[in-house]
Amino acid sequence: MLTALPDRSASLQPFFTPRGVAVIGASRDPSKLSYGVMRNLLDPEHGYPGPVYPVNPRAADILGLPCYPDISAVPDPVELAVLLVPAAMVPGAVEACGRRGLKAAVVISGGFREIGPEGAAREREMVEIARRYGMRVMGPNGIGVIDTHTPLNTTFVKGMPRRGHIAFLSQSGALCGGIIDWALARGLGFSRFLSVGNEADVNETDVIPFLAADDISRVIALYLEDVKGGPDFVAALREAAQRKPVLAIKTGRTAGGQAATASHTGALAGVHAAFRAACKQTGVIEVESIRELFDGALALAYQPLPAGGRIAILTNAGGPAALAADALESAGLQLAGTGPEAQVALRRCLHAEAQVAGPVDMLGGADHGDYRRALDAVLADPANDGVLAILVPQVLVDPVAVVDAIAAGLAAASAASPAAVDGSSAPRKPVLACLMGAASLDAAFAAAHRAQIPAYPFPEDAVAAFGILRRRAMEIAKATERGKSASIAPTAGRQPDQASMATGQRLLSEAAAAGRTSLDAAESRTVLDAFGLATPPDLLATSSAEAAEHARRIGFPVVLKLASPDILHKTDVGGVILGVTDEAAARAGFDIILARARAAHPDARIRGVQVQRMIGGGQEVIVGVKRDPTFGPLIMFGLGGVYVEALADVSFRLAPLTSADAEEMISEVRSARLLAGLRGAPPADRAALVAAIVRIGDLAAACPMIAELDVNPLLVLPEGQGALALDARIILA
Amino acid sequence: MLTALPDRSASLQPFFTPRGVAVIGASRDPSKLSYGVMRNLLDPEHGYPGPVYPVNPRAADILGLPCYPDISAVPDPVELAVLLVPAAMVPGAVEACGRRGLKAAVVISGGFREIGPEGAAREREMVEIARRYGMRVMGPNGIGVIDTHTPLNTTFVKGMPRRGHIAFLSQSGALCGGIIDWALARGLGFSRFLSVGNEADVNETDVIPFLAADDISRVIALYLEDVKGGPDFVAALREAAQRKPVLAIKTGRTAGGQAATASHTGALAGVHAAFRAACKQTGVIEVESIRELFDGALALAYQPLPAGGRIAILTNAGGPAALAADALESAGLQLAGTGPEAQVALRRCLHAEAQVAGPVDMLGGADHGDYRRALDAVLADPANDGVLAILVPQVLVDPVAVVDAIAAGLAAASAASPAAVDGSSAPRKPVLACLMGAASLDAAFAAAHRAQIPAYPFPEDAVAAFGILRRRAMEIAKATERGKSASIAPTAGRQPDQASMATGQRLLSEAAAAGRTSLDAAESRTVLDAFGLATPPDLLATSSAEAAEHARRIGFPVVLKLASPDILHKTDVGGVILGVTDEAAARAGFDIILARARAAHPDARIRGVQVQRMIGGGQEVIVGVKRDPTFGPLIMFGLGGVYVEALADVSFRLAPLTSADAEEMISEVRSARLLAGLRGAPPADRAALVAAIVRIGDLAAACPMIAELDVNPLLVLPEGQGALALDARIILA
Repeated sequence: MLTALPDRSASLQPFFTPRGVAVIGASRDPSKLSYGVMRNLLDPEHGYPGPVYPVNPRAADILGLPCYPDISAVPDPVELAVLLVPAAMVPGAVEACGRRGLKAAVVISGGFREIGPEGAAREREMVEIARRYGMRVMGPNGIGVIDTHTPLNTTFVKGMPRRGHIAFLSQSGALCGGIIDWALARGLGFSRFLSVGNEADVNETDVIPFLAADDISRVIALYLEDVKGGPDFVAALREAAQRKPVLAIKTGRTAGGQAATASHTGALAGVHAAFRAACKQTGVIEVESIRELFDGALALAYQPLPAGGRIAILTNAGGPAALAADALESAGLQLAGTGPEAQVALRRCLHAEAQVAGPVDMLGGADHGDYRRALDAVLADPANDGVLAILVPQVLVDPVAVVDAIAAGLAAASAASPAAVDGSSAPRKPVLACLMGAASLDAAFAAAHRAQIPAYPFPEDAVAAFGILRRRAMEIAKATERGKSASIAPTAGRQPDQASMATGQRLLSEAAAAGRTSLDAAESRTVLDAFGLATPPDLLATSSAEAAEHARRIGFPVVLKLASPDILHKTDVGGVILGVTDEAAARAGFDIILARARAAHPDARIRGVQVQRMIGGGQEVIVGVKRDPTFGPLIMFGLGGVYVEALADVSFRLAPLTSADAEEMISEVRSARLLAGLRGAPPADRAALVAAIVRIGDLAAACPMIAELDVNPLLVLPEGQGALALDARIILA
Repeated sequence: MLTALPDRSASLQPFFTPRGVAVIGASRDPSKLSYGVMRNLLDPEHGYPGPVYPVNPRAADILGLPCYPDISAVPDPVELAVLLVPAAMVPGAVEACGRRGLKAAVVISGGFREIGPEGAAREREMVEIARRYGMRVMGPNGIGVIDTHTPLNTTFVKGMPRRGHIAFLSQSGALCGGIIDWALARGLGFSRFLSVGNEADVNETDVIPFLAADDISRVIALYLEDVKGGPDFVAALREAAQRKPVLAIKTGRTAGGQAATASHTGALAGVHAAFRAACKQTGVIEVESIRELFDGALALAYQPLPAGGRIAILTNAGGPAALAADALESAGLQLAGTGPEAQVALRRCLHAEAQVAGPVDMLGGADHGDYRRALDAVLADPANDGVLAILVPQVLVDPVAVVDAIAAGLAAASAASPAAVDGSSAPRKPVLACLMGAASLDAAFAAAHRAQIPAYPFPEDAVAAFGILRRRAMEIAKATERGKSASIAPTAGRQPDQASMATGQRLLSEAAAAGRTSLDAAESRTVLDAFGLATPPDLLATSSAEAAEHARRIGFPVVLKLASPDILHKTDVGGVILGVTDEAAARAGFDIILARARAAHPDARIRGVQVQRMIGGGQEVIVGVKRDPTFGPLIMFGLGGVYVEALADVSFRLAPLTSADAEEMISEVRSARLLAGLRGAPPADRAALVAAIVRIGDLAAACPMIAELDVNPLLVLPEGQGALALDARIILA
């Protein structure tokens, strides 16, 4: 069921199916980009079917069409303008388009924000004018839109990609030429192709809901460089990924140069952690290369998802099958064996020396008939969830006939098993092809694309695409789980009430208003407590006598900790003494800590010494917060001590978190298997840990004045005994 | 300097440059494989220049050549036979070839070992016959040899790859068709191309030295499925990799199904660990996909190695440069900035809005002149070690002209800097190209290959190839270091003498001869001690009184440990008691351990209880041995406790080990940074650890009766204090 488009998305329709297109700055000089735009719009095969109006005061006609001196002179119907005039003329041209009643403009011209402050001012002026007329602008500095179904091509790039079902949004216009060129050679089909340029007006957060609601687009592929409007963008991703697969690649994944940070969490959250967390939490499939982006999109556009990870391999050569089998495991899949019935069927139809146990190796002599019969047997075999058909060119085998046979087998299987009609028959399985080679396989690749069989030149690429199908299937399963768990609040520990949380927020606001940059441990503890995190009994001593008195009341052994808003790393100055077992030691400890603190930081304000119950056992973990400038609070989880410090074994998600998010954060950390209780240790209270992570997320989301926060350690006690925030550090924005 | 070829290698020459080729079983039927062989041998452009003799008793002439009824009738000169007769006729045909005095035979026919025992017998018979005549056989069940320089093509695959400098050996014949097809489309050039089939006679251990000594082959690429003769193979790899880059991919990397094992080391050494260790120790570059194999080989064949990891990017589009920049880091490289002089030069020659700081983005309008000028500036810039030139197709830019400009710039740079002539000028830098796209770039790719500029369709692929160049450079540096360290015996601890080692070997031999499958802790300790590993003071008590007496002599605190040859996992049965502080506790502890052991394993032989000094401090590590059936003893290193058990954070090398090998093993383990002394702990005695690892390698190499060994824990004490093998377990073969 499609919901109504939100307004910002609905207003994008004229970019794809306009009633009339004007080209402002159209040229009759074939060396000009604007000529290329005209050529694409008027292409005899893929040209725009509605009226095209070249606008140029210095030409009478262009490519056989009458030329108009000004947009005001263009007759109805006209909804979309494509602008290729020099940057300085763009604001005036947009104004003219607005007056003429146009709904949308693609601004291909460069010379805006990307060239500096003067260009940025021009860009702002252009957007203000467009908004005044209720007109949407795509660009500037992008190459515009390709819609293969309308068809419409506002770009100047040679060649129209094949009609297909992949929607692509690119934040780089220059990249698009390479992708179109490659897509033409590979026969890759697109539905909508958008180069959004500087995103002065239309940006990815507008476009994604539009593509999500677009029935022709079966999969959305995103090339991103710089994301605007974090939370709206995340919401758009989430909604889109619930409807159809979304694949994304983002540059700047490994760039260094982040600002200095004061917490472990700050130091460990790389520049890319927030985007990666957003993908994980919304079900977007993040990829690491352009090849993977389109190889995966191709598979998602053409084939159903596998019900499980068991992939059968059908081949005429052992080597590529062995390579594919190796690649399966790293893609999170398994090589399927062949079930007994299918083995019998394969034995009957294949060469006597063929291997049928899996991979099914039909040997070099296999022809299209063998492929068809073997495919039928393997598709009917309940022992696999998908099939990879590998063909290595052989002198006597016609690769096109093999692809046609695979297509026929697939069609027959679909007809025989009308999935989801009565629910009783198994869903159709995905089939991908590896046509290994290139020189002799052009026709076979083309045949595969016609039949909607994704085809790849190397077994490893085909397996990676299978991995993406599987990831999508698992994201869907996770989203279902997520839907169930979203409403379930953590049950472990105490639920914070509104009044309590307001108290915590007030403390933070007052500290921030006073110009303070951090809270001391006691204050941090109060804030955590207000948001439902358990903390151990703890009293502040301002004299050695008071330290002894508090220790007696709390019960030995105790821990003594320096309380100073100016000294964050207490252990570095010797400000923590563990295992204090009597009053005399407490008194002495107080004096020692104060002396050490004053020696190390003579000017630091010292509030005294906290006296805390010493808790034995349990597993120390760290939960932290770092506020990402785009995406907001990013929550980190890791095991305490060397696991975070030496191994950087941590995971991230964006706040607020569901319990499922927190569960995933824990599972993602390799050392978290220690929580299960290794070497005779009791299993840790995982429910309490999940609740603590969720509440720290709630705290971060509710208190924007928190820049960074480390709860370190959070002590997770044995099952049923909860988790205690032993120490914490809050850095204010 | 080339050394003389070893005999087994020298005898391969007739496979590549034979004087006369006979085709046994030549056919005039174009649908037969043997016709394909004739067609390739007689190709007007790439045909074999010497005499070709079709042999077939039922034909008078084939493809215009007179046909001979039998090999005995073939005139001189003839050295090589290509056999395509049915399997049953192969032994007879080989006999006839031997009688006729041929030196080599390529057996393409299948029907040998790959079909079962009958075929295997036939294969053995064939080899015996060949050996009798001193004839070498390649195959059976392979497609033979392509030599692009002779030229000679004994395969039936359509198309001759371009002449080039990549030597390729494949253990899969079927894969070769796909690779040739792809190489033809990509313009990839080969020197020698070998499909060795079943390797009945000629195998990879013969071929690698031949290719290593072959001046035309600049790089060796290996596709392996099953390695024979581990140690010889390793020696061949080592010698080859010292001369030229060797790239390898091996299937079966992730296959499960290994035999059950009794030690940590056994459980953690996957099926692929030994091959991987062999690559690391010989300087062979292991890759994970066929694409990476050839992308890397292309770069190594055409371009010099980078002196460092700083790669400059020159582009006409920002997006692909951003993708490449991200990929650099994961390939172990860095994005180079532009030095101040080069920035000035670039500002002068490029468009005003071009980015010159790096990546150098010349923007979409850049033409071949811009590429040339910018390349000159970047090649002259000392701030980088290599250049990636990216071209995205643009309407007005001729990609072939850009490639030609890059080639000209490279040629000019080479001419200006005759590396290694006077040693003062910088060595030539590698340049790789990314020609992003496909449909419009065929001519540009061809031009790049003509100019020996490796070119790739995606930025990530180009960066991966740069990563391989860099790995090769680092392997060379490592080999130099290895040469220095190989002769340096570990200096830490006690050097074992021959007599002492003989004692250890004798103990093992006697236990093995007695049919025992394991040694108990005391015996294992004696063996370790004999090979120079320090162990703590330790006495065996056979009564509770003796336990108390031993404890008093050793000094408290002590550890008590069950001594039983039948119980390997002592802690599992409660057979270890730590921190025994007085004689009464020692007495009681003895009784408790015996009671627990008897309860758990009533039939186990119990030798008593070991009394050991309890050592405080230090870092526990595990060093283990598992004997690989092909490669011999495999040594494992990891940090003790959860790091091995829960995180599987371990590294492997083959014995015997150099100190450099041991150093690398330590560095490869992520948790090994704990050895440096985190959180105020003193740094561990790394030299002693290196010595211990080397000695365990020596022990494993000297004692083939050891199947598995865990030294767990090996306690590495603070710097200067050595390392102690606290416990050990030896499993006999």
